[in-house]
Amino acid sequence: MPTGLPAANSLVAPDEEGWVWGQIKAEARRDAESEPALASYLYSTILSHSSLERSLSFHLGNKLCSSTLLSTLLYDLFLNAFSSDPSLRSAAVADLRAARERDPACVSYSHCLLNYKGFLACQAHRVAHLLWRQSRRPLALALHSRIADVFAVDIHPAARIGKGILFDHATGVVVGETAVIGNNVSILHHVTLGGTGKVGGDRHPKIGDGVLIGAGATILGNIKIGEGAKVGAGSVVLIDVPPRTTAVGNPARLVGGKEKPSKHEDVPGESMDHTSFISEWSDYII
Amino acid sequence: MPTGLPAANSLVAPDEEGWVWGQIKAEARRDAESEPALASYLYSTILSHSSLERSLSFHLGNKLCSSTLLSTLLYDLFLNAFSSDPSLRSAAVADLRAARERDPACVSYSHCLLNYKGFLACQAHRVAHLLWRQSRRPLALALHSRIADVFAVDIHPAARIGKGILFDHATGVVVGETAVIGNNVSILHHVTLGGTGKVGGDRHPKIGDGVLIGAGATILGNIKIGEGAKVGAGSVVLIDVPPRTTAVGNPARLVGGKEKPSKHEDVPGESMDHTSFISEWSDYII
Amino acid sequence: MPTGLPAANSLVAPDEEGWVWGQIKAEARRDAESEPALASYLYSTILSHSSLERSLSFHLGNKLCSSTLLSTLLYDLFLNAFSSDPSLRSAAVADLRAARERDPACVSYSHCLLNYKGFLACQAHRVAHLLWRQSRRPLALALHSRIADVFAVDIHPAARIGKGILFDHATGVVVGETAVIGNNVSILHHVTLGGTGKVGGDRHPKIGDGVLIGAGATILGNIKIGEGAKVGAGSVVLIDVPPRTTAVGNPARLVGGKEKPSKHEDVPGESMDHTSFISEWSDYII
Amino acid sequence: MPTGLPAANSLVAPDEEGWVWGQIKAEARRDAESEPALASYLYSTILSHSSLERSLSFHLGNKLCSSTLLSTLLYDLFLNAFSSDPSLRSAAVADLRAARERDPACVSYSHCLLNYKGFLACQAHRVAHLLWRQSRRPLALALHSRIADVFAVDIHPAARIGKGILFDHATGVVVGETAVIGNNVSILHHVTLGGTGKVGGDRHPKIGDGVLIGAGATILGNIKIGEGAKVGAGSVVLIDVPPRTTAVGNPARLVGGKEKPSKHEDVPGESMDHTSFISEWSDYII
Amino acid sequence: MPTGLPAANSLVAPDEEGWVWGQIKAEARRDAESEPALASYLYSTILSHSSLERSLSFHLGNKLCSSTLLSTLLYDLFLNAFSSDPSLRSAAVADLRAARERDPACVSYSHCLLNYKGFLACQAHRVAHLLWRQSRRPLALALHSRIADVFAVDIHPAARIGKGILFDHATGVVVGETAVIGNNVSILHHVTLGGTGKVGGDRHPKIGDGVLIGAGATILGNIKIGEGAKVGAGSVVLIDVPPRTTAVGNPARLVGGKEKPSKHEDVPGESMDHTSFISEWSDYII
Amino acid sequence: MPTGLPAANSLVAPDEEGWVWGQIKAEARRDAESEPALASYLYSTILSHSSLERSLSFHLGNKLCSSTLLSTLLYDLFLNAFSSDPSLRSAAVADLRAARERDPACVSYSHCLLNYKGFLACQAHRVAHLLWRQSRRPLALALHSRIADVFAVDIHPAARIGKGILFDHATGVVVGETAVIGNNVSILHHVTLGGTGKVGGDRHPKIGDGVLIGAGATILGNIKIGEGAKVGAGSVVLIDVPPRTTAVGNPARLVGGKEKPSKHEDVPGESMDHTSFISEWSDYII
Repeated sequence: MPTGLPAANSLVAPDEEGWVWGQIKAEARRDAESEPALASYLYSTILSHSSLERSLSFHLGNKLCSSTLLSTLLYDLFLNAFSSDPSLRSAAVADLRAARERDPACVSYSHCLLNYKGFLACQAHRVAHLLWRQSRRPLALALHSRIADVFAVDIHPAARIGKGILFDHATGVVVGETAVIGNNVSILHHVTLGGTGKVGGDRHPKIGDGVLIGAGATILGNIKIGEGAKVGAGSVVLIDVPPRTTAVGNPARLVGGKEKPSKHEDVPGESMDHTSFISEWSDYII
Repeated sequence: MPTGLPAANSLVAPDEEGWVWGQIKAEARRDAESEPALASYLYSTILSHSSLERSLSFHLGNKLCSSTLLSTLLYDLFLNAFSSDPSLRSAAVADLRAARERDPACVSYSHCLLNYKGFLACQAHRVAHLLWRQSRRPLALALHSRIADVFAVDIHPAARIGKGILFDHATGVVVGETAVIGNNVSILHHVTLGGTGKVGGDRHPKIGDGVLIGAGATILGNIKIGEGAKVGAGSVVLIDVPPRTTAVGNPARLVGGKEKPSKHEDVPGESMDHTSFISEWSDYII
Repeated sequence: MPTGLPAANSLVAPDEEGWVWGQIKAEARRDAESEPALASYLYSTILSHSSLERSLSFHLGNKLCSSTLLSTLLYDLFLNAFSSDPSLRSAAVADLRAARERDPACVSYSHCLLNYKGFLACQAHRVAHLLWRQSRRPLALALHSRIADVFAVDIHPAARIGKGILFDHATGVVVGETAVIGNNVSILHHVTLGGTGKVGGDRHPKIGDGVLIGAGATILGNIKIGEGAKVGAGSVVLIDVPPRTTAVGNPARLVGGKEKPSKHEDVPGESMDHTSFISEWSDYII
Repeated sequence: MPTGLPAANSLVAPDEEGWVWGQIKAEARRDAESEPALASYLYSTILSHSSLERSLSFHLGNKLCSSTLLSTLLYDLFLNAFSSDPSLRSAAVADLRAARERDPACVSYSHCLLNYKGFLACQAHRVAHLLWRQSRRPLALALHSRIADVFAVDIHPAARIGKGILFDHATGVVVGETAVIGNNVSILHHVTLGGTGKVGGDRHPKIGDGVLIGAGATILGNIKIGEGAKVGAGSVVLIDVPPRTTAVGNPARLVGGKEKPSKHEDVPGESMDHTSFISEWSDYII
Repeated sequence: MPTGLPAANSLVAPDEEGWVWGQIKAEARRDAESEPALASYLYSTILSHSSLERSLSFHLGNKLCSSTLLSTLLYDLFLNAFSSDPSLRSAAVADLRAARERDPACVSYSHCLLNYKGFLACQAHRVAHLLWRQSRRPLALALHSRIADVFAVDIHPAARIGKGILFDHATGVVVGETAVIGNNVSILHHVTLGGTGKVGGDRHPKIGDGVLIGAGATILGNIKIGEGAKVGAGSVVLIDVPPRTTAVGNPARLVGGKEKPSKHEDVPGESMDHTSFISEWSDYII
Repeated sequence: MPTGLPAANSLVAPDEEGWVWGQIKAEARRDAESEPALASYLYSTILSHSSLERSLSFHLGNKLCSSTLLSTLLYDLFLNAFSSDPSLRSAAVADLRAARERDPACVSYSHCLLNYKGFLACQAHRVAHLLWRQSRRPLALALHSRIADVFAVDIHPAARIGKGILFDHATGVVVGETAVIGNNVSILHHVTLGGTGKVGGDRHPKIGDGVLIGAGATILGNIKIGEGAKVGAGSVVLIDVPPRTTAVGNPARLVGGKEKPSKHEDVPGESMDHTSFISEWSDYII
């Protein structure tokens, strides 16, 4: 289980940030040349900027602004955060790599940077979380609200999220206040990491490193989804899931049973294999 | 079951509206002082207004406007409705109290007023419903469309909704044309109160007072969810659920069985206890 | 199974387009007269335009624009596509008819044209798909991203979609890169046609003509949902479903069993009957 | 000389307001029918409103808003002012009549209401002036600034202006803090009613009833332009001009001389004859 | 004097349009490469477009739009006009050449196209004039109003204007309803071609080919400024000015006297020499 | 005459900047308390910012942005310039003091900062000038164009302008490419510092320190207006004006004559006395 998220061993080396940013600019330059109708967009979002943090701050500021929260204010807020906190930048780079490596539909880093609402929501959440930890809660909640409106991704600013995260498709994701998500986790759309009622305190799931959570899964309560576990699409999980184990169904059961859950060896958050384990299981007849 | 929703015994006393508005202004003033970056937002949305109805009309007008439906038009529409119909205001106050009391993540009334897409969608729906009842259907449907776009909450303007409602997280909620929702109901995100096909007429669920519906539950057809019942997260319900009874699973079964469903005593729509009853139930092994 | 979607036998005759457009203008004129507050909106979106393609291009351009993708650029893009490719127009007309005929809440063609996010997302997707086939992929993906942000409908631009499609409510729909959807299909909200992991290639479902997919269903992998089949709300489907057969549950089972699935005679994508077949099925007691 | 501007004998009878508003709606309806491309504009600005004050408040709010002064705030401000102060409404009606009667290029009341920047700047100024008199000076000055930006008309909110005013073309008009303008005055573009330096106090011109001031005239200091006087285009006036007298030139001289200025009989602010008197005068040879 | 403006001998050959457009694109490409911060702007306004008419329509649509007159509507209007009427395009090209050749501060064609408010106001006026001649007067006047607001250039849509026009700086220019401006005319800022009162009919100046009018000149009444004449800065002209003659002063006198005005040989509208002729004249001592 | 403008002896001490900024915040705080309707505006423009340069960059970015030049881009551009070049900040402070001290209508520093289009245009010009000197000419010209559109103030980015400048009212000011303006100059609206034709090179006026130029004055050609000179309103000046001398009229003559111009002792650019010297002069009779 992830204990404290901003781990000492940063997942991304400083020069990796430069390398990814170089890739992004090269991709955008190629696309601007091949598609004049998009060139203005690519210059304003990527090619006119001197760094990934500026590009990302500009893009998020323009995506999340409203008539009462101006883009300049948000741009400033994001740029301050990304400039002053290198862990935010390395997390963004790790998330870009996660999308590029795990999602076959992700054709380039710039595609993820510009278009993945899960990626963008996650980076904005990291800034909201920073504000939350700085006790700037009203601002964190206002940002949270904008993310929920614009991307339909609702992550409470207090939730702690690791690096190398892929929120794939992302629409409808809900992550509660005391939830914790480890590193290298992949979460599909419509996933809920929810609480258990109106009692406060620590009441949301803890997701271990390398976990894969299928589309529409609902995980409720202060339970542990162990390192490298898988949760099947559409499952409703209310029990701990041991490491490297699979839970499926509504209500979710462990594949192999609670006593002897069958273990798998790969890291599903990275392999993204989220159906093989349930193919025979679904081969049932009523 | 709720028979006619705008009950004679209003849930909110007139001076309660004043008290809540006073709280909201005090909270906003405190937040504006502690967070200058947010002060402009708080003044424009709350502190510059003389009443809750003006603040809410301003906020909804700016949230829901588009390039073809201007904020001034919507502001006017909302202000007229909230000013002329006190039941809309008392319902808003009851909804604010519901969020504040039932959702441990709701830190203040102003937090709900500004940031809860479920709260905002519900208030805008109430105005759309008023227009619908006044036979101003094209306008009601245009407003409905904006709510669905902006908040990803899709409540048909004809649907009747009581007071003291908490739409928690709210993304993906769908409520059909002939649905009825009682008072003091709590509904999580991704909940569907849907119809049963292309036949018109009365075809959507009727939700009793005090019901709690868990995340991702799908309730279909002209069925009754009795007063104080619970529906588990991810359940698919196609049958009546008796009062103070719990339905879980896909397809949903009554806990305790159809003949002798086990009754609970609390009002789940208010206690928000939506997992205790299924914790042992999920403790199954395949 | 649909082999190639833009079938030779176009579903909509050229004069049908004119007839539907005439209906839309008549409806808008009637509504503008009865509701002055909406007249400006109706003139700008419908009544000031000389053709359905212009109205639709205007409406989509204004809905999908952002501060970095201007409405004029998108309007131009849509108008060029709809003007030069008659199959886009006939598909739009077939989709309008589908909504009008199958959805009892759809009160007019103009209601669908203006307000149905599923209809609008689908038409914008068709243009993104055209760009994708023309190898203008960065632009197709940028458009895809806007559709996902604005409508919370996430259809990969490579996905192939037939005519006469009803995406009802539509919020949360996800359709993957190699998915194929036949003609006259009805898909409710929160439906996922997803892949099976991080391996590329042909990995998404193929949906036959006339299929009906209930709310919240998750269909994963390169499987076939046969012509005229039904998938129950909330089902998780990982196996082929034979034609005119029903699959329900999580994991989904065939009604009647895998060996002898019970066949039905109607075309569910058109009849929209998506609960009768599971009413007794849900009548279970734990 | 005008002593106090909001004269007891209102120039416009209450039912005149209704008559003019009726004309405006009839004109707009006719234009909307003949020009569908403009119908949306005409409905949003005129035809959707129930009164002149609402139409004008909407139009000014949308014209003068900015990203930091929202249209809803301005709309509210204007509507409150026009609703509560009938003299603002009667002045607007008198100004509409002035444009319609004196300017041959003014083809209709609605043309003036929608398009005359001088008319719109003057109505907005009247509201700024009301705020100034209510000691709401920062707001008055903010409004003043927006009027100067948007219309290039710079009237200090403290300046007192009568009724039946025509600011023709209006670009570049500057009216200082202690200036007073009487009733039925016509002022062309680029006219300055300026002060005389950095000393405060009463330092700007006083313009009598029925005065006509030609394009580009500069009138400086606390001087009196008597009732029914004319000031030639391009004149620079630093001396009192007696009633019904003409001043022309740079520096301005009285036609007929200071001792015996030649008097004219018509009311030039209404007849708009601003060249006949100087035609022979300009017939000079160097 | 110009008799009918759209002269048979078009000033610009068809291939000249292509040549100028080629220059503009080359300039924009060079600037986009040297200045990434401006590249997005240059792509959206110029480099993404396939023709001068598209670029100009896009630029004008975005400059002149408002919250009630959308950019898509204006873009459509401009594109239709420029596409269908080649004389509008050749006039635009002639105006671009005029700026490039006569104004030493004009560093490139693209500089004029993008930044010269006089150029942009003039092209928009030509479209308003076309609408006026097509009896689409309300639309022409609405466009006129937007031009006057945005550029502070107020040209009545009925005014007839030739080709090869330079409105230098342009702020404050006012041109009345029955004014006519010939070909190759240069007009500085704050110039008024005004009427003579409230009488309708033909009441504004007629400006011959090749005329130069200095900054702040006021020309009033139905008078003729002969071919190749000059009007000095700040002059007030109420009399005919013979061809190739100079008028200066307030009131304006002919240099050399009315009987024997001194003639000059160059074409001042093209040479832009607007001070040599008055240098000795101003060398006076009071 | 000013030789090089950014003089060694900076007019504003570093701590003066802090003092003025402190005043501005105190004024804004007082106004926000007394006028809730304006508080949002005051927080967004002033009170939420940590320095004058941030407030000014925010305000200019939002004033000058357009749909194709986004506020975030402009904000970044301004903030970089004001942060890196202290002379820009000290010039802004000197200009604020100039307005506060010389203009009796200027009630506070914040009033000038927020509302004076002359002040704002001048600060934006200084940034455009910096870009011009850095050979970023296309960007400088684009900024120039926005300033001319938004404020109707047209200052060529190459023009050199000193400190302590008051552009009073400012509408219609035109300053040419090779113009130079010294320190402590006051310039009223509609003033032109223009060139002399189409020949390039050094062709615009040079304005000495402490000069006062009245409204509507037109100064043309590479002439010198000596230190402490005055130019009367509406004058047309084509000759050098010696120091501490007054020029009035059209054409302008020196008061006292060319040989023995009468000298005055005060610094008119600071005293703003721009009519006393011409009061007797205008007391003429035709």
